[in-house]
Amino acid sequence: MYISVYRKAHFNAAHRLYVKDWSDEKNLKVFGVCSNPNFHGHNYEIEVRLTGEIDPVTGMLINLKDLKQIIKEEIEDRFDHKNLNLDVEEFEHLIPTSENICYVIYNILRKAIDEKHQLRIRLYETPRNFVEYPADRVTPT
Amino acid sequence: MYISVYRKAHFNAAHRLYVKDWSDEKNLKVFGVCSNPNFHGHNYEIEVRLTGEIDPVTGMLINLKDLKQIIKEEIEDRFDHKNLNLDVEEFEHLIPTSENICYVIYNILRKAIDEKHQLRIRLYETPRNFVEYPADRVTPT
Amino acid sequence: MYISVYRKAHFNAAHRLYVKDWSDEKNLKVFGVCSNPNFHGHNYEIEVRLTGEIDPVTGMLINLKDLKQIIKEEIEDRFDHKNLNLDVEEFEHLIPTSENICYVIYNILRKAIDEKHQLRIRLYETPRNFVEYPADRVTPT
Amino acid sequence: MYISVYRKAHFNAAHRLYVKDWSDEKNLKVFGVCSNPNFHGHNYEIEVRLTGEIDPVTGMLINLKDLKQIIKEEIEDRFDHKNLNLDVEEFEHLIPTSENICYVIYNILRKAIDEKHQLRIRLYETPRNFVEYPADRVTPT
Amino acid sequence: MYISVYRKAHFNAAHRLYVKDWSDEKNLKVFGVCSNPNFHGHNYEIEVRLTGEIDPVTGMLINLKDLKQIIKEEIEDRFDHKNLNLDVEEFEHLIPTSENICYVIYNILRKAIDEKHQLRIRLYETPRNFVEYPADRVTPT
Amino acid sequence: MYISVYRKAHFNAAHRLYVKDWSDEKNLKVFGVCSNPNFHGHNYEIEVRLTGEIDPVTGMLINLKDLKQIIKEEIEDRFDHKNLNLDVEEFEHLIPTSENICYVIYNILRKAIDEKHQLRIRLYETPRNFVEYPADRVTPT
Repeated sequence: MYISVYRKAHFNAAHRLYVKDWSDEKNLKVFGVCSNPNFHGHNYEIEVRLTGEIDPVTGMLINLKDLKQIIKEEIEDRFDHKNLNLDVEEFEHLIPTSENICYVIYNILRKAIDEKHQLRIRLYETPRNFVEYPADRVTPT
Repeated sequence: MYISVYRKAHFNAAHRLYVKDWSDEKNLKVFGVCSNPNFHGHNYEIEVRLTGEIDPVTGMLINLKDLKQIIKEEIEDRFDHKNLNLDVEEFEHLIPTSENICYVIYNILRKAIDEKHQLRIRLYETPRNFVEYPADRVTPT
Repeated sequence: MYISVYRKAHFNAAHRLYVKDWSDEKNLKVFGVCSNPNFHGHNYEIEVRLTGEIDPVTGMLINLKDLKQIIKEEIEDRFDHKNLNLDVEEFEHLIPTSENICYVIYNILRKAIDEKHQLRIRLYETPRNFVEYPADRVTPT
Repeated sequence: MYISVYRKAHFNAAHRLYVKDWSDEKNLKVFGVCSNPNFHGHNYEIEVRLTGEIDPVTGMLINLKDLKQIIKEEIEDRFDHKNLNLDVEEFEHLIPTSENICYVIYNILRKAIDEKHQLRIRLYETPRNFVEYPADRVTPT
Repeated sequence: MYISVYRKAHFNAAHRLYVKDWSDEKNLKVFGVCSNPNFHGHNYEIEVRLTGEIDPVTGMLINLKDLKQIIKEEIEDRFDHKNLNLDVEEFEHLIPTSENICYVIYNILRKAIDEKHQLRIRLYETPRNFVEYPADRVTPT
Repeated sequence: MYISVYRKAHFNAAHRLYVKDWSDEKNLKVFGVCSNPNFHGHNYEIEVRLTGEIDPVTGMLINLKDLKQIIKEEIEDRFDHKNLNLDVEEFEHLIPTSENICYVIYNILRKAIDEKHQLRIRLYETPRNFVEYPADRVTPT
């Protein structure tokens, strides 16, 4: 049977939620205070989950030193202490909602992680709001 | 692929675990101190998970302002600062164990949430005891 | 110089805030939903702080096994899974606000702890509301 | 003896650390990535501590409903989902370091809280970095 | 539909990661500081998840008093305040990585828990590193 | 008035509590399972508090980059992934209780931190057991 390994990391970033084609009124109506034109920010927490088989020699799924380095180079160095709307190219034409940030992080890490490992990302915007991609779907039983 | 969005909320309530037909001795034997006739209580935390597809215009699965309002009206206003046994009609003939509270919350919210979204509830009675409905079942692989 | 040792414990209890001589309306106005006649409840966390000198032989201020036992017998066994208003005699004529619960716990433990150790109690009613007795007063500098 | 009551609140904000008269190089050298010109952000947590005497009738130091309302109006409504540098007038000529934000919050709340209560503010910028004003000073013993 | 019940427990233990046949240099290269010959240690947290059907009479999946006792006897009494490499026989020929510890705990508890309940174990080595066995696999949808 | 700045760090270490001159029986009686001859371990958290005045130009008490570096070099590099009894010279003749570890860390950092800043250390052995040196003493009021 398969095992999952989780590694948490974090980055602190500014963002703003708005649709460029919409009026300020419509953005305020849909996104509320999250559309503040001067941005606001969060301490984002990310939880990276890899699923696969244990290496019988080392007893590890993946060397955590390697996973930490991948997360540092691919995510922290590019997202930490940044303005997601202005400083991160993936959001030039994509609203940096939690859902989209999580999806973007998944796609970046998917290329950097060996394809033998399944990958899932959980992103906390606050301790009370978080998202997960791809989702576990509940199977009727 | 599907994404999940989680929102946490909480309510503080009193409850007592006991089967009405049983003697105090039998209730004490099965439920221990949780059957104290004068009730005890908890800070309950609930985690509401919706699963579905991202709206390509807003980048959101659901507007969190709407989800917060649904949880407030359907759960917090009815459960917070209440005695679950005496003040919440769903428990007039149902023991308010964590399992049953979670199941009741699921059924209340299932009616209030668009059926295109899968729903799962996690309920913390304490930081060390919690339940989840419906369960993810582990599929042999 | 002196050192402090902290030990955390917890109890789950029901309570109700109200002044017996007041009308339900006045109690509701002052205490809000906390005056619900059928009680509500909390997971209380307590933090016991002892201050004194390190024993040079054992390197300890107090043996934690002894401190755990004192907190279990004096507080947990009497407060856990209880209704503070109905089951704990100290609150027969005293409203079980966080302030008063903290004060009562201090007075119970003060008799059980060697007087060579200063004592302070912090009581969490929720992760966002807590009290501390006796207070550190800020000294103008 | 005196008792302390704590209430936690939070706000999510963007900020940038830099001295206006300094070059970008000097700001980068002193403030590091915190001087990113497009801002970054945090989930700030604030802990408001009041110290004073328990009201013998209500058993409370202060009615938490009132304290919550004061914190909401004076701090959350003005700081939450804002850019501290651009949207909050107190930082027009003051760098929004944790130290200065804590000091500003203290001064705002000091005017709104009855002077019979001592006041102290703790501000978390991240779970690992936080500040407290005014400080308890350790008295040599 | 099925429900899951979670119970958390913890143990504090020393361990060392190394392959007996390898040189110190190779162990250091692969396992880094975790291969320190004199051991290091952790506060391990375990999360035991049972999945099954609610008993309609008691409203419980399993009596938590029984589950706590099983975890205490089978895991805490054998792992807590121990050196995993030297004091726990399962690791005489198995490296005590998080993955292997989780797998060993699963196999011990699987024998002690009624087979009508599905079982899953999550093991936290630190708040940032944790593993789960058996894994939920993401099903393409 | 003075302000305090806190910075948290952590290290994972093995240790054993025992008095060399005592029999195993006496050590077991006093220190319980903490005297296990093969060691056990913990995820230690340290909280370093500096107290002093804000620099009016930078708005900071101390540059956190410098404080992080001091803690890394003086504490983490010497204590992390180590056996405190065998690998850290300060404990060659001193029992590594939480009290003594906290006292040792204070003395190491006191030499590395500018004496204009007051210093206090809090050390968590587990989330439920922690110590603080030097202690704030409660002043009778």
